Amino acid sequence: MPDTALPAPASLPTAEDVRAAARRIAGHAVRTPLLESPLLNDRLGGRLLVKAEALQKTGSFKFRGAFNTVRQIADAGVQAVVAYSSGNHAQGVAAAARLCGVRATILMPADAPAIKLANTRAWGAEVVTYRRGREDREAIGARMAADRQAVLVKPYDDPRIIAGQGTVGLEIVEQASALGLVPDAVLVCCGGGGLASGTALAIRAGWPDVPVYAVEPDGYDDHVRSLAMGRRTGHQATEPTVCDALMSALPGEVTFALNQDLLAGAVTVSDDAVLGTMATAFETLKLVMEPGGAVAAAAIMAGRHPIGGRTVIAVNSGGNVDAAMFARALARGPLL
Amino acid sequence: MPDTALPAPASLPTAEDVRAAARRIAGHAVRTPLLESPLLNDRLGGRLLVKAEALQKTGSFKFRGAFNTVRQIADAGVQAVVAYSSGNHAQGVAAAARLCGVRATILMPADAPAIKLANTRAWGAEVVTYRRGREDREAIGARMAADRQAVLVKPYDDPRIIAGQGTVGLEIVEQASALGLVPDAVLVCCGGGGLASGTALAIRAGWPDVPVYAVEPDGYDDHVRSLAMGRRTGHQATEPTVCDALMSALPGEVTFALNQDLLAGAVTVSDDAVLGTMATAFETLKLVMEPGGAVAAAAIMAGRHPIGGRTVIAVNSGGNVDAAMFARALARGPLL
Repeated sequence: MPDTALPAPASLPTAEDVRAAARRIAGHAVRTPLLESPLLNDRLGGRLLVKAEALQKTGSFKFRGAFNTVRQIADAGVQAVVAYSSGNHAQGVAAAARLCGVRATILMPADAPAIKLANTRAWGAEVVTYRRGREDREAIGARMAADRQAVLVKPYDDPRIIAGQGTVGLEIVEQASALGLVPDAVLVCCGGGGLASGTALAIRAGWPDVPVYAVEPDGYDDHVRSLAMGRRTGHQATEPTVCDALMSALPGEVTFALNQDLLAGAVTVSDDAVLGTMATAFETLKLVMEPGGAVAAAAIMAGRHPIGGRTVIAVNSGGNVDAAMFARALARGPLL
Repeated sequence: MPDTALPAPASLPTAEDVRAAARRIAGHAVRTPLLESPLLNDRLGGRLLVKAEALQKTGSFKFRGAFNTVRQIADAGVQAVVAYSSGNHAQGVAAAARLCGVRATILMPADAPAIKLANTRAWGAEVVTYRRGREDREAIGARMAADRQAVLVKPYDDPRIIAGQGTVGLEIVEQASALGLVPDAVLVCCGGGGLASGTALAIRAGWPDVPVYAVEPDGYDDHVRSLAMGRRTGHQATEPTVCDALMSALPGEVTFALNQDLLAGAVTVSDDAVLGTMATAFETLKLVMEPGGAVAAAAIMAGRHPIGGRTVIAVNSGGNVDAAMFARALARGPLL
């Protein structure tokens, strides 16, 4: 899936690129807290810490990679960017563009959550919608970029994006170390693999012995399949999932080159477990998780990854969820 | 309202007592973040930062004062405490007692939110219920204390409690200073006045020129009345409010002695504004606020305290809300 608006990555990002990204986003991105609930830990029989990227600017981790990338694009003298996204990358790029003083045009699926469409516009971006599954967003994105003399900011398959998302992992290492703890595992929500690869890069640089796992929705198991096959392999899902942020068809080229080396594995969780985890997070952590942002914690709560007696850090990737979907999670009730 | 189980306070707490409390709770209480949403700020036409005590251990600021007090009681060799509370002080005392290795018995209204009753028990406390408005909780609490050779931990009218809650204000000064800002005002949720007086003590020690305002639910305006009258004056409310945490009848003796000097004023907000603020906080801050925990932010969002062009810090006091009440807030929709 090469495109002409960006040069092909010369090399894979490194842990030093993540540190450079951390310096670039400092003062712009939120250093999000690691949250935990002693009562939830009692119920789990282990210790769960949640890296709360719902509290990040724009409500998801996507601002980190977007700012790290748009800042560099703007510094190179480019005055416009385009992006395609189901919603969180859209808001991240829109916010980064506003802060860097460049124009942003974002291509979004017409059925994206209303909050994601509204907030992308509120950040000052022009929003163009397309029909998910019926139009080729990458082709439309490339054409929009050419029309507008703009640079395409990919959602995940770019070393600058990956390095930016990796600051999540860097902060986890710093924050856990300040608490005097080294976790037994780190679990990361996974769509195209940008957050997973960046986080794994930083985690394994800081803690070479700590395994990092990707978590996907049941059916959308392209990382499970790809890690098993040793090559990028698509999922076979035909039904939608509540995890609108995690519906990408295939691991990225750059992200998978990293993830193949860095990840200890991948697991999946059901939509019901995701909704139950959102309700548990509401009750115990007081955090609003969006469905796609709840899969890593759901893997712990649903027992897909054993925690008994151990300490696990789960990344919550975002909190941009419509009230109706959140009410559905509350009506379902806590998983644990 | 003297009781025999605790000596009367010899003197009012000072800013130095707040600093001592901060040292005592360090490593036990969460240093909660100051949250903000640029999109919410756009809508407000000002800058609102929210001190998110929903993310505190036990889901409210009450853990701070409870731990500061129970730690001192336990260090004096006492092995049991009792408390009366609508729910947040209950959980704070239960958690503090568990951490300090003393027994806790908590008197709670039978109609307290289910989450507050369940969590108080989950922290290991014995819970005794009474009928709100029909039984005298202070008399029952004093009797329970005598029966159990236990020390009563009052919900607010104790210098140790006030000093503990004041660590909210101390952290606000430190965190805002780290951001390079001094707010134009600080707004605090107010029931018995413990959080308001402690926070005001620390805020005015750090920023002598920054006014601190208490915020109450419409009808439960005992601080508005008391500040106007220059003496402790009860409210006239007969209808319940959604703000179960803020239904105390009268300012405390110790708290009002401080608040009378330290507060710049008090305002009230409607239940509807509270529910709308909870929905706005869900959408923009990704934070779960309970009704009583939303009144300070509601005063800003509903225009009861003008923010145009200014920077205001509102304390969110907690997030212990049942799913049904939160669903009601979501159904009401964002105030702003």
